[in-house]
Amino acid sequence: MLHELFTPSVQHALDLVGIFVFAISGALLAVRKNFDVFGIAVLAEVTALGGGLFRDLVIGAVPPAAFSDLGYFLTPLVATVLVFFLHPEVERTQTAVNVFDAAGLGLFCVTGTTKAYDYGLGLTSSAALGLATAVGGGVLRDVLANEVPSLLRWDRDLYAVPAIVGATMVVLCIRFDSLNALTSGLAVLVAFALRLLAMRYHWRAPRAWNRRSNAREEPETEKATAQ
Amino acid sequence: MLHELFTPSVQHALDLVGIFVFAISGALLAVRKNFDVFGIAVLAEVTALGGGLFRDLVIGAVPPAAFSDLGYFLTPLVATVLVFFLHPEVERTQTAVNVFDAAGLGLFCVTGTTKAYDYGLGLTSSAALGLATAVGGGVLRDVLANEVPSLLRWDRDLYAVPAIVGATMVVLCIRFDSLNALTSGLAVLVAFALRLLAMRYHWRAPRAWNRRSNAREEPETEKATAQ
Amino acid sequence: MLHELFTPSVQHALDLVGIFVFAISGALLAVRKNFDVFGIAVLAEVTALGGGLFRDLVIGAVPPAAFSDLGYFLTPLVATVLVFFLHPEVERTQTAVNVFDAAGLGLFCVTGTTKAYDYGLGLTSSAALGLATAVGGGVLRDVLANEVPSLLRWDRDLYAVPAIVGATMVVLCIRFDSLNALTSGLAVLVAFALRLLAMRYHWRAPRAWNRRSNAREEPETEKATAQ
Repeated sequence: MLHELFTPSVQHALDLVGIFVFAISGALLAVRKNFDVFGIAVLAEVTALGGGLFRDLVIGAVPPAAFSDLGYFLTPLVATVLVFFLHPEVERTQTAVNVFDAAGLGLFCVTGTTKAYDYGLGLTSSAALGLATAVGGGVLRDVLANEVPSLLRWDRDLYAVPAIVGATMVVLCIRFDSLNALTSGLAVLVAFALRLLAMRYHWRAPRAWNRRSNAREEPETEKATAQ
Repeated sequence: MLHELFTPSVQHALDLVGIFVFAISGALLAVRKNFDVFGIAVLAEVTALGGGLFRDLVIGAVPPAAFSDLGYFLTPLVATVLVFFLHPEVERTQTAVNVFDAAGLGLFCVTGTTKAYDYGLGLTSSAALGLATAVGGGVLRDVLANEVPSLLRWDRDLYAVPAIVGATMVVLCIRFDSLNALTSGLAVLVAFALRLLAMRYHWRAPRAWNRRSNAREEPETEKATAQ
Repeated sequence: MLHELFTPSVQHALDLVGIFVFAISGALLAVRKNFDVFGIAVLAEVTALGGGLFRDLVIGAVPPAAFSDLGYFLTPLVATVLVFFLHPEVERTQTAVNVFDAAGLGLFCVTGTTKAYDYGLGLTSSAALGLATAVGGGVLRDVLANEVPSLLRWDRDLYAVPAIVGATMVVLCIRFDSLNALTSGLAVLVAFALRLLAMRYHWRAPRAWNRRSNAREEPETEKATAQ
């Protein structure tokens, strides 16, 4: 059993923090889209729990954690109430929200990968599912809000890469039999730090070469051309 | 075994009615979006079966009822044929369709909650999954039609609340050990009636307080400001 | 065990070809939508594996093939690299891509139907799930790209019908106990040929009769009125 890397209560508390900050990001988008209070709650729940729900369906862990742990279900409702009454204040702390979201990203890519491996997936598949756990909720959030998922857009700072790095570190540790609380924590920290750096320096990923719409652009200059 | 609250044949007939009216709502949207006959059939199937399919995947009831009961699969095709040939007449009966849709909402939130509890979920999770059963098909319908789900929009009459009330009544009955055909039927009726009242009096849910785009609006005055 | 209709290695090679061409179609749409390289990879993976993933979740085959066969996961990444560096050349071979996509459609509707039947679904449900396997990835691709699924649009050449015919041939063969490598191959070929003919002659499906927006149009004249 790998997935109790930390003591259960620490693990659970970290999960709830990740769920909470993802829920905040969903609720804020709902307010921006002018949804009513139930729309805010739905988007908060979907953003917070969607990635883990997808992971649990794929590995056959039914009922999924989202429906068996009451705290997982109630935390997004707390985020909904908070955003409902205080959203200008929450918007003003957007930087704080982004920092927490980066923490959630780091945490979920690591716990998602570990849980997938626990359920018998191979190393590469586990990393892929860890990535899906970390980014899936945000993709569902954007689909429900009828927007192009920000994960896919070239004009957003790197989001997938930090999660890929974190998930890859976990499977390398598993491969070399050295996964423990310390190395997992390190993977979380690296993913977290990479995401913070990507936001700070607006790191972006290249688009396809030789797109027709523009003259040839070297991917390396892409960062400077955020429109 | 709770979920045979009614005799199986009554239960099955009620399910088919709910599936039929949800399919009509999907098929009508498909016509409005100018889809071809296969698009109409796909949207009818997804709207009618999507919520139950999601519920069955979450509780691990595979293959889901949507794929094991032929009547569930064929009913939306009947709705497709009807809308295909007669859609102006069906549109003219929009009120009738809305009334049936309200009945489907009431029925599905109750049967969804009961089935989820039967499969071992907790009370709160069962109610949440009952809600998802009732509204899930409509959300998928809107996502496939590339529209913001009407469930989430503030300018639509209350849709989630009646289902939440119905699902909550069911779990309270379970909690106090008094779930039977009578109390379930009552929960269906209450959800149904609430939805009818919401449509009749255009009840709406409040949006977030202190939204930037407008001056402060009290949620209570929201009903009057449908734009 | 029906689903090893061909020798395993032939079956596997055919699967990878289907996955590859579906991935190309996802990657090309991603480039057109101006996604970055990770967006291209995500859309390639989702398009190629989404239909089979849905099928495996419905029949309870967890973990799904998409997460247990490394080749399934890596093939879309090869397609991503190819499109990333060479997409004008790939676009120029659009006809070739369409032909391969038609082959993938034919193949997936047959293998999807067969696998669903293997897992105990009824004949009609197996055909429906075979259809979902063949078209599901494309629907997910369009939803993630925030477009109306081309499967549903009336102004696209028939896509569902060839898959329905192929899936129906398979279940008829099962019904009359004559499913073997030859008849399956024939079903693939028929679906493939129908799709090619639909593209060549722009076969379209009728929209609902008596739509309000236009004067009465006979479905048979629809083909000529692509706007």
